[in-house]
This record gives sequence, C-alpha cells and structure tokens, in this order.
Amino acid sequence: MSSAAMGDATVGSAVDLAERLMACESVTPARGAVFDALAEMLEPLGFTCHRFISGEAPDGPVENCFALRKGPEGTPHFAFAGHLDVVPPGEGWHSAPFLPERRGDLLYGRGAVDMKGAIAAMAAAVQDIPQDAGSISFIITGDEEGPATYGTRALIDFIREQGDIPDLCLVGEPTSVNRLGDMMKIGRRGSVNIWLEVEGVQGHVAYPHLADNPVPKLVAMLAELEALHLDNGTEWFQASNLEITDLEVGNPAHNVIPGKAKARISIRFNTTYSGAKLGEMVSAIAEKHGGTARPVISGEPFLTPPGDFSHIIAESVEAEIGVVPEASTSGGTSDARFLKDLCPVIEFGLVNATMHKRDEAVAMEDLLALARIYRRITMAVFS
Amino acid sequence: MSSAAMGDATVGSAVDLAERLMACESVTPARGAVFDALAEMLEPLGFTCHRFISGEAPDGPVENCFALRKGPEGTPHFAFAGHLDVVPPGEGWHSAPFLPERRGDLLYGRGAVDMKGAIAAMAAAVQDIPQDAGSISFIITGDEEGPATYGTRALIDFIREQGDIPDLCLVGEPTSVNRLGDMMKIGRRGSVNIWLEVEGVQGHVAYPHLADNPVPKLVAMLAELEALHLDNGTEWFQASNLEITDLEVGNPAHNVIPGKAKARISIRFNTTYSGAKLGEMVSAIAEKHGGTARPVISGEPFLTPPGDFSHIIAESVEAEIGVVPEASTSGGTSDARFLKDLCPVIEFGLVNATMHKRDEAVAMEDLLALARIYRRITMAVFS
Ligand SMILES: [Zn+2]
Ligand SMILES: [Zn+2]
Repeated sequence: MSSAAMGDATVGSAVDLAERLMACESVTPARGAVFDALAEMLEPLGFTCHRFISGEAPDGPVENCFALRKGPEGTPHFAFAGHLDVVPPGEGWHSAPFLPERRGDLLYGRGAVDMKGAIAAMAAAVQDIPQDAGSISFIITGDEEGPATYGTRALIDFIREQGDIPDLCLVGEPTSVNRLGDMMKIGRRGSVNIWLEVEGVQGHVAYPHLADNPVPKLVAMLAELEALHLDNGTEWFQASNLEITDLEVGNPAHNVIPGKAKARISIRFNTTYSGAKLGEMVSAIAEKHGGTARPVISGEPFLTPPGDFSHIIAESVEAEIGVVPEASTSGGTSDARFLKDLCPVIEFGLVNATMHKRDEAVAMEDLLALARIYRRITMAVFS
Repeated sequence: MSSAAMGDATVGSAVDLAERLMACESVTPARGAVFDALAEMLEPLGFTCHRFISGEAPDGPVENCFALRKGPEGTPHFAFAGHLDVVPPGEGWHSAPFLPERRGDLLYGRGAVDMKGAIAAMAAAVQDIPQDAGSISFIITGDEEGPATYGTRALIDFIREQGDIPDLCLVGEPTSVNRLGDMMKIGRRGSVNIWLEVEGVQGHVAYPHLADNPVPKLVAMLAELEALHLDNGTEWFQASNLEITDLEVGNPAHNVIPGKAKARISIRFNTTYSGAKLGEMVSAIAEKHGGTARPVISGEPFLTPPGDFSHIIAESVEAEIGVVPEASTSGGTSDARFLKDLCPVIEFGLVNATMHKRDEAVAMEDLLALARIYRRITMAVFS
C-alpha cells in the first residue's frame, strides 16, 4: 500500500503518529522530546497527561506518563500500556535509525515494532471514541528495556495514589510472530537470577591438603541444580526452566588452587512457583554443598486465564483481519509482570521479527490494522 | 657462630660466595652480573664456563652456564645443578633484598636458600677437590622460577652436543624442611595443565530451545573428572591428584545463555602415568561431554630409586651433621624433571622455610655445613 492510498484520517494517522514518535531519540532511560510528542497527540483528544521524572543515575532519571481521559461515573476504565524507550540502534542500518523512512510497504526506524508503532496505533485508535463511552488511559514508561527500576513500578504507585485503577489493561508489546494477529500473551513466566558462591582456601596444587578447593563443591552444586526437574508445565504454561548463565573463578595461576568459585543461574518459572520459593530451594542446595545463593527476582509469573478479555481481543482481531490469535504464555518478561497487580492484563501488538535488530521495520498496513483492532477492542470493553 | 669464627678458608667462603651472588639482582629471566660473579668463582678453580643466552621476550632472553672441569679419562663425571634466578622480592623486607645482610646467625637476602646459597656451597665444596679425582660440572640456569622455556632444557641440549654427559647429578634446591639435612628428593611428580572447552550456541534464557548451553556439559565433564580415582600412589610416590583450577564463562548478561564455557585443571601425577597418557584420558572424557581438552605437560615424573647415589648422600649428611635425610618425592616440580633425561638425579639443599617469602634467610652455619656435605658427596662419588 502506498502512502497515497491512506485516505481515512484516523487510519492514516497511525503511520504519521508512529513517524513522529520514532523521530525522537529515546534510548533507555528515555525522557523529554518523545514524551512531548505523545502529549501533543493525546491532549487535543481530551487526555490529561500526568508526566513525572523518577530515579537517579545510573538507572534513571526516567520519564513516565499516565494520560487519562475520564468517562462518566460508573463506566469502565480501559488502559493501554507500553514504553517509549528503545534499545540502542547498533551499527549497519540502511537508513538513520531515528529518521523514520518509508521504503515500499514498510516504515523503518528504531521502535517501529517495539513499540512506538503500537503506541501510535493506540493514539490513533482512541481518536474518535466518544468520551462518554468510558475512561481510557495510557500507562507509558521511558524504562522498559532497561532495569525497569523507575518505570512501570513508579507509574503503578502513582496510579494507586490517584485512585484511578483501570479495570483491564492491554499492553502493546510486539506479540505477533509470523503475521499480525497470530499471537497474544495471556501470561508470562516469572524470572529469577541467582548468584552462587563457594568459598574455599587458596593453596598450591602440589600441596592440596593445605588448601580447600571450592570448585568441586560448585560443580557438584551445579550438577544437582541442572538435574532438578522443576515441573511439567501447567495448563497454560510450558515447564519452568533453569539455565546456568555464568561461571567465574578468575585464576590465572596454573599452580594455584583458587580460594573462591562463583556461578550464576537464571530460572524462568510458571505459576507452580514464586521467586521466593525458588530462591529458598536453590539456597538449600547451595548450602548443602558448602556454598551460598543470592536470588534477585526480576518478576513473578502472571496469568490472565482465557475468558471475557481474551475473547474480546480474539474476536476483534478476527473481525478486522481474519486471523485468530493463539493465547500464549511463552517468551521473555514484560512490564505486564508489574501491571498484573493493578488489574487483568493481556499483551497484543505488532510482528516482533525485527525487534531489537538493525533495520527494525513495520508494515504500514499493519499499523493501520492495529489501530482498527485496538479501537474495536476498546469499544467492545465499553459495551 | 660469628663471622669472626669462620677461620677455615674453604668453609668461610660459602658465606662470602653466597653474599656475592645475592648482591646481584637476578629476578627471572636472569642474566649478566650474577653469572659474571659465578664465573669469577669457578674459573680460578680450573673450570671452563660455557655461557650462552637463549630465547626471546617474553620468556627470554635467559642466560645459562655450563661450567666444566674435566678429570682424567675414565674418571666419573659429577654434576651440580641449580638456578641463579630468583622470584621477585615483593614488599615489606627488613633489609634490602639484594643487599645481603648478616643479622645474628642468619644471612638475609633474596635467593639465600632458593638457591644462591646452595650454589655458593657447591663452589666452596669443590675448591680443594683434586682435579684428577674426576670431572665436575655446574649446570646453572637463569630461568627456573619462570616458564623454564630457555633454561635447563637449553643446557641439556648444549651438554648433549658437547658430549659431556654427567654420570650423576645433584640439584641444590632447598629440600630440607625443619632442619638442614632432614629431607632429600629422590623423585618428583609430573605435572600437566589441561585447558577444557565446550562450545554451544548462544541464546536468550527465555528461548532455551533456540540455544545450546555449554555450561551443563562442562559441569558434567568436571564432575566426571573430579570423581576419577587416578591411583593409590606407588612404593615411592603419593597418589596422583587432580585439581580444577579455573572456570570461565565471562557472561555479564543475566538473560543470555552463553556460547562457550571453559575450565582448567592441573594434575600432579606419579610414575603410574605419563603426561601424554593423562592428556588422552582427559580428552576422551571431554569429548564424551561434547568438549575438547588441550593438555600442556609441564614435566614428567622422575624417580631415582633408593640405591648407591641416595646412600652416598644420606651417609654424607649423617657424617657431617648427624641427621639422616628422608628420601621423599613430595612437593612441586623442579628442573630435575629435565635433568633426569641425562643421568640419575637427586635433589638436596637448604631449609626451605623462607623460600619465595620476604626476609628470606639462611643460617650461616647451614651454608658452611652444606659446603662440607657437598664436598663429602663429591669425594664419595669419585672414590
Ligand atoms: Zn518492548
Ligand atoms: Zn629453586
């Protein structure tokens, strides 16, 4: 589809709005211009943009925006959520990553699918929804790709203080895999990283009785952890999985028995576990082998079991583009891990094939279709 | 004993000669002044000093000296061996490490026991041995404490070319433990370091099916290696021993399954094995777990079984100082691992308590006694 073919004002603007957001450099932690651009889209539509900056270096400062257009008392509150920060563009692009460029059917630029394109589609979607249909909000952070310390968590605190808790939340992450609409995420696994350490006594390899080598203890600990059978998966989730992601001794001396050995594991887990429970399990195994474990929970799992909300999304996608999305819980984490504490949350967005890659691009037709889908979902929630 | 008490010219000079060698800075790789000092001692006694420099940076250049005083045709050839290089002095000395200082009964300075003191005792020992008793040589390197790439191995090549192969060799390493004379080394274990590596396929922890984590394979490999029972020791040797000395993945990204995992092991082994045989054993285990092994043999084991040579040493020690040395094969490696290829070799020298430490020191009385012991051994070999 050529840009000349985009006659409809609402639909045409999903591409235009995406270009405006993508033209702002906003590598994590993002703030400033890209949030100005968003406010300029939403305020004319009747939204009040609550913008605030949180945190300090190195994880901040981060800008966040809670934009709300209240409907009449007693109407539902539907929230869109997402992030305006992007991962660094890297090298080798065919066009400048922050100068969005249309080539053929595609719009190129960092953030095209992850996820300025989806935020543009949200803004386009709500343009002609009558204000008396219900409350609509945008929960938009500048730190999703980074440590997420001062991002969506700060927004949730703000929303709770305001008392404007949404009833349902749609996160616009790029969940589609092969074509727009083929997948939504009704849940995500939790994630915990655990640092393991064994202390020994350094010595010379010729006199092992005077030393205490910590490496065999770490090896036995890791062998036991690797052999753990966590679970077989649940009705909605694949099995929990443990990966050993790092080993470190750092001993350059061939004749020296080292005094310390370290490892790191990463567990992606389903609703069979909590991060705390896994931390306790691993700590017990570490201690059995004379070591210690320090767990850092990145996120607990969430699940919005198939029901009204997922049906609305599936029917809206099918009505607009004739595709029935699979309800999946696979893949990495997203800010839905935090938003789940506010209300039921589902993720649905663009095709993720080029996300985090060079020459990230979105089909302009997909942007237009996503705006129509988001509009239809919103109307269905309100009716 | 005060220095005033050292009346005898021969005996007194063991301390004097030690001071002259210790006054030369000679951290590995050593060359120059310390070899000049040795040549000035040996040439007046009728020795011809063959000095040569081997190797390039970083392991060289290294100076070596083969000093030979030939006896009549058909007489035995007895060799002393040792090194004039020293380990770096480090901090915190009470006197300058290269300004030898007599305090009380001790002579302080880097190399006092390891092993300029012993080389001084050798030079003192041979002063009044008649030239017609037999051939005497000094096999002295400037690189024993370092990689030993261009040290004793180069000397052995030189000696073989010259055709002056000794019949017996005494290495003056500090083998005594609690008091002079309590231990000699009739053998040493061999040493091999083996670098282990497993290659996998890097990926994201959320998508383990798209990656191939090499760490569990390395862990299983190390667990099998650690569980190996190498041997129970031999009549003269303790059991062979394997230590895991390093682990390395070097993956800072918590969410990334690494693409490569590495480890290093060190095996000290007795005459049950050769370095090559252990390399093959470990390689087979590494390959079974999808990895590779790269062995680097530092030295093969050597054993000069108790017999005429060890009896001469034991009787000489007992005759001079009333101590019967234990014949041991414990501890680290020495250049005897190379010299064993020339002729039977045994190590006997000073007390090693302060070797490689700050305030390295030798009892002056021990230096004088060691010169007498070395003289008695030489005469016994010749008779
Ligand atoms: Zn994203
Ligand atoms: Zn030494």
